[in-house]
Amino acid sequence: MNLEKNRKKAVCIMSGGMDSTLGAYMMKKEGYEIIAVHFNYDQRTEAKELEAFKKIAAALDVKEQYILDLEFFKQLGASALTDKSIDVPTGGVQEGIPVTYVPFRNGIFLSMAAAIAEKEGAEAIAIGVVEEDSSGYPDCREDYITAMQNAINLGTKESTNITIKMPLVHLKKSEIVTKALEYKVPLELTWSCYKNEEKACGVCDSCRLRLRGFETAGVEDPIAYV
Amino acid sequence: MNLEKNRKKAVCIMSGGMDSTLGAYMMKKEGYEIIAVHFNYDQRTEAKELEAFKKIAAALDVKEQYILDLEFFKQLGASALTDKSIDVPTGGVQEGIPVTYVPFRNGIFLSMAAAIAEKEGAEAIAIGVVEEDSSGYPDCREDYITAMQNAINLGTKESTNITIKMPLVHLKKSEIVTKALEYKVPLELTWSCYKNEEKACGVCDSCRLRLRGFETAGVEDPIAYV
Repeated sequence: MNLEKNRKKAVCIMSGGMDSTLGAYMMKKEGYEIIAVHFNYDQRTEAKELEAFKKIAAALDVKEQYILDLEFFKQLGASALTDKSIDVPTGGVQEGIPVTYVPFRNGIFLSMAAAIAEKEGAEAIAIGVVEEDSSGYPDCREDYITAMQNAINLGTKESTNITIKMPLVHLKKSEIVTKALEYKVPLELTWSCYKNEEKACGVCDSCRLRLRGFETAGVEDPIAYV
Repeated sequence: MNLEKNRKKAVCIMSGGMDSTLGAYMMKKEGYEIIAVHFNYDQRTEAKELEAFKKIAAALDVKEQYILDLEFFKQLGASALTDKSIDVPTGGVQEGIPVTYVPFRNGIFLSMAAAIAEKEGAEAIAIGVVEEDSSGYPDCREDYITAMQNAINLGTKESTNITIKMPLVHLKKSEIVTKALEYKVPLELTWSCYKNEEKACGVCDSCRLRLRGFETAGVEDPIAYV
């Protein structure tokens, strides 16, 4: 009866996208009980992402879920994802940091995940960052995440010891697709598009990276595109 | 005319309390333009703290101010400051981490301050943490803040270089009182009580530390106590 109580717990940050979904499935396979955390920060496609998150959390049979409303990024603006006066680029992935960059987003997400982990007695946080083959965001790099883990452990109780897992950090998008199939991830439930909520646009950076990943993996993407 | 534009900026996290107020005054004296940031996280005394913050921000003639509503800690609970089912202790300051501890609060505050600093082009963040003579919170220690600074600089743009200033970290409360008088801080506007919003209770940890500081400094506290 007490086995349940002793299972190790992981706080999984889950957007509803392909990467963080695979990350959560990998954590589950590793034996963690999943505490699913989703952030609504008024990003353009939040309604669709939240729907995806809920379906995935149900499919994954998570232990607990937090859906957190974060007004902050809207108040801050400064990103095409949260500020509707800035267009989402659709011309192709460029070098450098794109206008979809949200300042220190993963820092804020990880800090909140740390607070949840401390409250819930979880020993891990999982985040679906991908360093290469991604969008050039500085808060998706391994050295940053490792530094954040160090800060979190110094800034919480002595008894709190958290490992930040980033199982996808060195994968390419095509490897993510292959691994997702291997782990039986319900890819048809995931949502990656930055722009649309009905059918994916196919031309924003996120759609392009996703589609390229499926193409390289030689697999068809199960979601609908315009 | 362009001098204004070139003045260095600091994001100051200001609760409306004595410590963070002195910190902001010290930053101003150092020549920084102040971007004042206040967090409303549904703590018990927020109405009073916000009133204090606004008056202090006006007295300090800040360049800009952000008042951020953060539902998160209320959703999380787990602290006497945000969960009204847990009483604020009034029996005297105890060893160890008190029930007023809010999990990784300063981590979340600093992450948001970092996002603001990146957007505003600020080169510093100031936080009024006090390591000793304080309440034993792990997120108030110098080594944690330094680790967080490292994480923030790795997780933001190459062009973003932020120093986290903690001008009070090694002061005692009595030294804070003395310094506050020296810097002409309007102590009568500051609010420290965890419990009341009319007159300070005088017996919560925060009141006790404040009163002890004034007593040791040989100065009378200008605010009203029950």
